[in-house]
Amino acid sequence: MSWLEHSIMAKRGVAKGEARAHHTLTEAEQGEYKYVYGPYAAPVLRVKPGAVVAAETHDAFHGAVKTEADLPTKVLNFPYVNPQNGPIYVEGAEKGDCLAVHIQKIVPRGPQPAGTTCLIPEFGGLTGTGDTAMLNKPLPEIVKKVHVDPVTGVKWSDRITLPYEPFIGTIGTSPEIEAIASIVPDYYGGNMDLPDMAPGAIVYLPVNTPGALLFLGDCHAAQGDGELCGVAIEHPTVTTVQIDLIKGWTFRWPRLENERFIMTIGSGRPMEDAARIAYRELTRWLAADYGFDELDAYMLLTQAGRVRLGNMVDPKYTIGASVLKEIVG
Amino acid sequence: MSWLEHSIMAKRGVAKGEARAHHTLTEAEQGEYKYVYGPYAAPVLRVKPGAVVAAETHDAFHGAVKTEADLPTKVLNFPYVNPQNGPIYVEGAEKGDCLAVHIQKIVPRGPQPAGTTCLIPEFGGLTGTGDTAMLNKPLPEIVKKVHVDPVTGVKWSDRITLPYEPFIGTIGTSPEIEAIASIVPDYYGGNMDLPDMAPGAIVYLPVNTPGALLFLGDCHAAQGDGELCGVAIEHPTVTTVQIDLIKGWTFRWPRLENERFIMTIGSGRPMEDAARIAYRELTRWLAADYGFDELDAYMLLTQAGRVRLGNMVDPKYTIGASVLKEIVG
Amino acid sequence: MSWLEHSIMAKRGVAKGEARAHHTLTEAEQGEYKYVYGPYAAPVLRVKPGAVVAAETHDAFHGAVKTEADLPTKVLNFPYVNPQNGPIYVEGAEKGDCLAVHIQKIVPRGPQPAGTTCLIPEFGGLTGTGDTAMLNKPLPEIVKKVHVDPVTGVKWSDRITLPYEPFIGTIGTSPEIEAIASIVPDYYGGNMDLPDMAPGAIVYLPVNTPGALLFLGDCHAAQGDGELCGVAIEHPTVTTVQIDLIKGWTFRWPRLENERFIMTIGSGRPMEDAARIAYRELTRWLAADYGFDELDAYMLLTQAGRVRLGNMVDPKYTIGASVLKEIVG
Amino acid sequence: MSWLEHSIMAKRGVAKGEARAHHTLTEAEQGEYKYVYGPYAAPVLRVKPGAVVAAETHDAFHGAVKTEADLPTKVLNFPYVNPQNGPIYVEGAEKGDCLAVHIQKIVPRGPQPAGTTCLIPEFGGLTGTGDTAMLNKPLPEIVKKVHVDPVTGVKWSDRITLPYEPFIGTIGTSPEIEAIASIVPDYYGGNMDLPDMAPGAIVYLPVNTPGALLFLGDCHAAQGDGELCGVAIEHPTVTTVQIDLIKGWTFRWPRLENERFIMTIGSGRPMEDAARIAYRELTRWLAADYGFDELDAYMLLTQAGRVRLGNMVDPKYTIGASVLKEIVG
Repeated sequence: MSWLEHSIMAKRGVAKGEARAHHTLTEAEQGEYKYVYGPYAAPVLRVKPGAVVAAETHDAFHGAVKTEADLPTKVLNFPYVNPQNGPIYVEGAEKGDCLAVHIQKIVPRGPQPAGTTCLIPEFGGLTGTGDTAMLNKPLPEIVKKVHVDPVTGVKWSDRITLPYEPFIGTIGTSPEIEAIASIVPDYYGGNMDLPDMAPGAIVYLPVNTPGALLFLGDCHAAQGDGELCGVAIEHPTVTTVQIDLIKGWTFRWPRLENERFIMTIGSGRPMEDAARIAYRELTRWLAADYGFDELDAYMLLTQAGRVRLGNMVDPKYTIGASVLKEIVG
Repeated sequence: MSWLEHSIMAKRGVAKGEARAHHTLTEAEQGEYKYVYGPYAAPVLRVKPGAVVAAETHDAFHGAVKTEADLPTKVLNFPYVNPQNGPIYVEGAEKGDCLAVHIQKIVPRGPQPAGTTCLIPEFGGLTGTGDTAMLNKPLPEIVKKVHVDPVTGVKWSDRITLPYEPFIGTIGTSPEIEAIASIVPDYYGGNMDLPDMAPGAIVYLPVNTPGALLFLGDCHAAQGDGELCGVAIEHPTVTTVQIDLIKGWTFRWPRLENERFIMTIGSGRPMEDAARIAYRELTRWLAADYGFDELDAYMLLTQAGRVRLGNMVDPKYTIGASVLKEIVG
Repeated sequence: MSWLEHSIMAKRGVAKGEARAHHTLTEAEQGEYKYVYGPYAAPVLRVKPGAVVAAETHDAFHGAVKTEADLPTKVLNFPYVNPQNGPIYVEGAEKGDCLAVHIQKIVPRGPQPAGTTCLIPEFGGLTGTGDTAMLNKPLPEIVKKVHVDPVTGVKWSDRITLPYEPFIGTIGTSPEIEAIASIVPDYYGGNMDLPDMAPGAIVYLPVNTPGALLFLGDCHAAQGDGELCGVAIEHPTVTTVQIDLIKGWTFRWPRLENERFIMTIGSGRPMEDAARIAYRELTRWLAADYGFDELDAYMLLTQAGRVRLGNMVDPKYTIGASVLKEIVG
Repeated sequence: MSWLEHSIMAKRGVAKGEARAHHTLTEAEQGEYKYVYGPYAAPVLRVKPGAVVAAETHDAFHGAVKTEADLPTKVLNFPYVNPQNGPIYVEGAEKGDCLAVHIQKIVPRGPQPAGTTCLIPEFGGLTGTGDTAMLNKPLPEIVKKVHVDPVTGVKWSDRITLPYEPFIGTIGTSPEIEAIASIVPDYYGGNMDLPDMAPGAIVYLPVNTPGALLFLGDCHAAQGDGELCGVAIEHPTVTTVQIDLIKGWTFRWPRLENERFIMTIGSGRPMEDAARIAYRELTRWLAADYGFDELDAYMLLTQAGRVRLGNMVDPKYTIGASVLKEIVG
């Protein structure tokens, strides 16, 4: 029996964690991809809890970087980067509810070399940027195209092949009245770039607006902690998610559950604020649902908490704080 | 002869810095006040360069805090705070242009005590917040209503009266595709809470979208550097601005000019990033328009730059960097 | 054959990674424990490369917190916390060299309950502190004593037992002319609170002053990422390290090697600066010693780097950035 | 009658704010200049409260940058920069007391061009540094020597002359057991680079160790807010200070008083932490000595506080928060 049957989604979901109607969201069905998370675009799909959606995602560059000669400054047009599928309207979802999104599968699509990473001027973790403004000359612009295969992996060089470990870089619900660029991570999810958003995991997202309005995109074939230069192995995919709805489970920041741990996710600057958010949310979750006194949870996480750095390059940095299920029971 | 005749607005504006048609934007004409800076709301007014607009602004609470018993958690409904007048569509404005907004006058309106400050739980510079998450108990919720008079000043207590030094707390243009909460300051302006946005000054704002879409509101009767507890002396006003348009003057972050200095304004977290943005913009401005080598400007500002802290409480902190006109000529 | 035989210490050490003379550093031999990392105290031991030293360490409170009634504010006397063994003078070590410290063994000592954690007012990751100053009331002061056993683990409660996973919380060499409180982590090591400083690992420390002057102490029986409340499971130990010397291997920040990965360690505030330091050092290390072009290393670490958060509570935060040996060869 | 007669120093000082014995601290009397703030060096002078000391200070480079061809990387030897006069032992000073230092006079000395500013690789506010590590190429190394005259000012170029507005860049007492590089500002003072440390002001410094051990140096002929590139107009001087002692006035961070305002000074990273420290200290000072309720002081400073950015380039950033005496009485 799968752990999924004991998941929070299974216990509390309107659809009891069951996969029901299947939908597709092909490029044609999607039509225009979206560049903001917000309530102003019409839904491209309306589903009921239990829906399974297979979405054709683009890479973060909408496929514009086809060869290593396609320099970002030539082929990209900011702020039209990081195209998203959606919004998907989930029937019955209201502010104060929680969307459960079980990531079932991520499969690469499109012509090879399917993977792209690059250095974009004034973007990345070890360079002056628009936010951390410097007078230094930017790093050179470099594009690297790589072959991506679910079985043989990501071919970095003759010497190095990395395992194919795909995940969803950007996923979230709509803010209530704001429309935020898809490059930003925040309380509703967005561009968290957290490798734990991988097949098998269930992401819990706060609902801020009627229908929740789920967006997703920006899948990565491989990524290290922090997404150091700002560009993981970006690749187009078919990503399949199962969507459930938990009524009245109200919290501010995204949560995640997989077979081994529960996690809370904070995004902010400076980075310690992302860590504080994640750990405060986890502390309070242990107090609310796992029978701990709040300060005892705080002291326990001091000994047993785990931290994953999602990104250190986006407009807000993202950190996940987790604890093993075997510890908190 | 006023310095205004030598201002950048006068030299480069489509309307040559001249005040032309007069408009009002009363509560009735405004209709619904706005809570996001974005391109999704219909303009409430269309004007030509040279327009003078007298806008009836609300205080940051839309007048909901009427007495010291009206606690914020009871009478406010987030994110519906910091109501804005606008958007005002400026004819001829296109992405890459610059809007010049000369602040002519700010006059208090409404019944006394017209001024409000308060402590809002988990908001402010010396308390844990939603962004800088702590487990400590919040500070108590306190409301203070004060009498505001342009002549006699802001009556803080029997012992202390502060001068009436009004300014516009929140002003800016629309982002291109985003709609950002009016509590946020960023590259398009917004909630900078910078006391130099006072009568007499000219604010230069980058245009990101057709018509520029000017918003403004949130006038303060008095405020210290940093707006420490997060709430200045908020008050409703009639605020009169003159709007001009500078074609093809392209920059990223707001600028300001008054009789004595030129200033660039950065917003970000951590605070040093706001300072870096402001000073990089000023360095480059000196290089572009005042005949300096970039590194010489950098070294000169080391000796002669001045910094004003706008806010240390909003989602991004705001810093203005300035230099006296008498130094840079 | 152990991986140690292929370690950098084995390849480049003056003693070729061999364990030679054995020394003890008992409480009596140590005499006064030290509270600063600096060159002003006389060495308590002089050793040659290859020396093995078994040191009796105190817990971070010098044993003053004996029961749950011994509140920190009553029994501690700042800045006399975090007592250190040393300094150990390593013959032949000069500025520009590198000390290799192989952590052989950590064994608890002293009466039970040997482990201590607590909440100290204005200290910790989710509370206002002396550095992140707030007006909120401090969290309550709480002491928790726990039984620590290498075999059965750390008994947190009737419900929860954590594995015994000991490591050295504070270890480093002396700065050249500074004497820094042992609670601080910085370029010379110090209070990094990084769980990878565990038995089996080799720590590489820059030498800044003649004899290197090694200090160590503050061993933890268990700790989560970030040491959230600021106090891990502190416990007294006998800690055994093997010390080697690598002539002319010059770098600025601590490094670590174990069977699986190589790591660089940065400490700073805000936290992103700690991450930047760690990743820049790792990028440059790959370029210097592993045959990578610097920007290619930067892009590879984007896909394959791993981050461990040591502490988010000390005067500087600590982050380790690592990459698997199987990837970089 | 001078405001000095009503100063805190006059009211509470052991010497009642009176200037008594005169001392000199010439280069010969100083002997070796000091590069750390700490208790490990023998005092060069012992004085009683009321002492006036005229100290021959060096510039931050110990005079090594004599011409514009003397590049910092050639003539400087880190960490031997920012030489300090002292320590001066003040009789009767004990931990928990406060040293009052009235800055009487700063006079340039030495051959012309007496002033030096420069760009040092990986140092400054708009460049990657050792703390904010980047992979970008450093800015070029540039030295600029300028003529400094108390009457005619600082001759920046044919076009620009800046007023001579000298102040003490680095001043403080010794930590209790630490010895910190003189380039660092912290709770005991140090390299604050705050232009308000100017003739006329009284600086109040916490005493952490017997005799207080006063250090000072690093005088600037002119400096903008933030000391943007990291190097003000450095120049050698004769600096005259009057030293008094206030028994039992215990606080953590430096304070300053001049004719117009009282100020508290915080240093930290990120910059908002420096601001928080400064404003918390000021809030509590108003509550302790000026008859305010703490939260009322917090709300008043929101309307009337003023912020000065000292440095945005040192290992900690420095901010002074002040309020006019005419407001707080």
